[in-house]
Amino acid sequence: MRIEIINTGTELLLGSTANTHGTWMGQELVKLGLRVQRQVTVPDGVAINAALRESLTRSDAIIVTGGLGPTSDDITREALAEVLNVEMIEDEAALRSLHEFFEKRGKEMVPANLKQAQNLVGADILPNSNGTAPGIYAPPRLGGEPGCAVFLLPGPPRELYPMFHAEVTPRLRALAGVENIDEVQELKFVGVGESDFQDRLDAKLNAVPGLEVGYCARLGEMDLRLIGSDEAIAAGRKLAEEEFAEFLVSDDGLSLEAAVVRNLTSAGKTVATAESCTGGLITNRLTDVSGSSAVLGYGFVTYSNEAKMKLLGVPEKVLTDYGAVSEEVAAEMAHGARLASGADIAVSVTGIAGPTGGTEEKPVGRVCFGIATADSVQTHTENHPRNRIDFKMQVSQRALDLIRRAI
Amino acid sequence: MRIEIINTGTELLLGSTANTHGTWMGQELVKLGLRVQRQVTVPDGVAINAALRESLTRSDAIIVTGGLGPTSDDITREALAEVLNVEMIEDEAALRSLHEFFEKRGKEMVPANLKQAQNLVGADILPNSNGTAPGIYAPPRLGGEPGCAVFLLPGPPRELYPMFHAEVTPRLRALAGVENIDEVQELKFVGVGESDFQDRLDAKLNAVPGLEVGYCARLGEMDLRLIGSDEAIAAGRKLAEEEFAEFLVSDDGLSLEAAVVRNLTSAGKTVATAESCTGGLITNRLTDVSGSSAVLGYGFVTYSNEAKMKLLGVPEKVLTDYGAVSEEVAAEMAHGARLASGADIAVSVTGIAGPTGGTEEKPVGRVCFGIATADSVQTHTENHPRNRIDFKMQVSQRALDLIRRAI
Repeated sequence: MRIEIINTGTELLLGSTANTHGTWMGQELVKLGLRVQRQVTVPDGVAINAALRESLTRSDAIIVTGGLGPTSDDITREALAEVLNVEMIEDEAALRSLHEFFEKRGKEMVPANLKQAQNLVGADILPNSNGTAPGIYAPPRLGGEPGCAVFLLPGPPRELYPMFHAEVTPRLRALAGVENIDEVQELKFVGVGESDFQDRLDAKLNAVPGLEVGYCARLGEMDLRLIGSDEAIAAGRKLAEEEFAEFLVSDDGLSLEAAVVRNLTSAGKTVATAESCTGGLITNRLTDVSGSSAVLGYGFVTYSNEAKMKLLGVPEKVLTDYGAVSEEVAAEMAHGARLASGADIAVSVTGIAGPTGGTEEKPVGRVCFGIATADSVQTHTENHPRNRIDFKMQVSQRALDLIRRAI
Repeated sequence: MRIEIINTGTELLLGSTANTHGTWMGQELVKLGLRVQRQVTVPDGVAINAALRESLTRSDAIIVTGGLGPTSDDITREALAEVLNVEMIEDEAALRSLHEFFEKRGKEMVPANLKQAQNLVGADILPNSNGTAPGIYAPPRLGGEPGCAVFLLPGPPRELYPMFHAEVTPRLRALAGVENIDEVQELKFVGVGESDFQDRLDAKLNAVPGLEVGYCARLGEMDLRLIGSDEAIAAGRKLAEEEFAEFLVSDDGLSLEAAVVRNLTSAGKTVATAESCTGGLITNRLTDVSGSSAVLGYGFVTYSNEAKMKLLGVPEKVLTDYGAVSEEVAAEMAHGARLASGADIAVSVTGIAGPTGGTEEKPVGRVCFGIATADSVQTHTENHPRNRIDFKMQVSQRALDLIRRAI
């Protein structure tokens, strides 16, 4: 089923308001097993006519938000009537609702609101319990168009969201028919790159009948999206796990930090952090997760050498002999954080975030990791020559993954 | 000048990633005095061809994001070549950059990356200093198209944003003609809301001849955008400062944390943090700023009561008598952090981030702040009943502003 979304609103194109409708509806439709094929944003005013005309030629359903208000640039209703070439008529029930809305609030209805009771002949009015703008549902073949349904919905989220659930969801279900609905699974991998997937997995996945494959690469992680029947998804997942099982962090949309907190919780273990170059980012990400207080009590941001000595007990001699960015210091930091906090696992990072502070021997991007458990303290070194913010993010990814593997 | 944006990415249509590119570019173009006429999102794959064809017929410039990666669904480059009917050719400089990118990271380049060195004959390669995907600029009339310029840019923000500034902005300026471009000043205010601006300033600003005014409200801060001649901007700024001078954080786009680090540096002062409910976010934001190591040596994330006692010396009796979320504890935390670190200023936060953990007396969103200097320790309480992530962000805004005012 081909679905397109049209969002109207000049403020969306100016960037003064983020377009959250597109994202929200995409998520809601995925829950129904449906997908949006195209999303278009047009300014308030006449641009909606051309956008409607184009979408009608290639869609089974169009969902339009905005332009149902009382002001002069609210013309979505009129645009649809013109494009479908059907008459408009005042809807008695809608007019009654409008009058009730204002009476209930002790306000006078102004003439500008009258146009909100207009409907297209043959279309349904979608009641709005949270505002003055009712929605409109134009069923397929209204005005002779070839089988495309059109929903006109109000822009404000508090009006849009309830109307979507009450009026749009059941109609889309009926239009789609259950047999057309695909499943979606998102697999999140950390520590393996987009080109590894391309080289070792992509061709195999594309050979699975009826499986649609999508990739989304983020800093230090890869989301693999599998769409299709249950069987096709299971086959794709099996192939992905054969290659990259150890990198698989979650199969239910959980972020890396949420997966770490979940795994710690179910293992009954606690963690502490000793951060130099990430400056609190690792701890901040862990505490973004509700329930993290049960698994994390202490975070040490030891930016200066003095702090590393005072809070984590790193010996001055180790700092002097090897430098702050060394596996020897990383080991002491992890060990010290574990001791000071009493946590089961402690992770440490010390590196050069840049843009200044690098040397030939230790360039910007160099970072040493430590991970301490009851049994051992392990260290290693990596290089991530990136800008400061990305460096911090990338290092936090690697550190969270170290915790995940240590659990 | 008609500009359209095409964002590619199935994850945008599924709603698993918010489309921040459209919003960001809308804002950037407004700063150039330009406007986006339409924004379209299409899935990865062949849908880009039709979208390009449609936009070409009605635009002066098209900006496309995404689909320049190495995987099989990255086909934006090929789509543009097909739509413009021009050949593709391997670009030697781009190939060299790719090799250097992998060498620098000590990684092997896989064959899949080779297609990222492909360019359209007659187009410019736009260098990417932060990733493997170079951008492409197809000037107007390439392939005989009627005068529309096309930019192909990578999807990841850390690659897109620098490339937009370095490569797209100057070319758009040239295409638009300098005479169309206004001056822009962004004033950032913290601790004052959008409705205060609406009530006390908006009418006055709109009365300034030739001044265009824009607002962008973010969590805990307000950006006021003034566009027009130097005189109009100066007049607008004067009006804004008359009302809200004490809330003005920066007039040069500097973030709150960067302004705090700059002010600490020029005052020759240091700061330490004692974070409970923000879990490292305050420290993380400060250390996002290059040069922060000169003003911050210690960050204490004391999520548990035990950590508050052990690291900051909060007396157990104060925790028992008043509870962890109290001004008494906030005062001890700030005082203790200042003592333990030797910093000039220490800020503390302790609160209930939620969604669980609230009581009738201390609901979710309650937060106590402390700020310690050589002269005094001051505390106060606020309520920010928001979701967990927004709560942390809002509290970090207030804490950073406390440091700013204490300097």
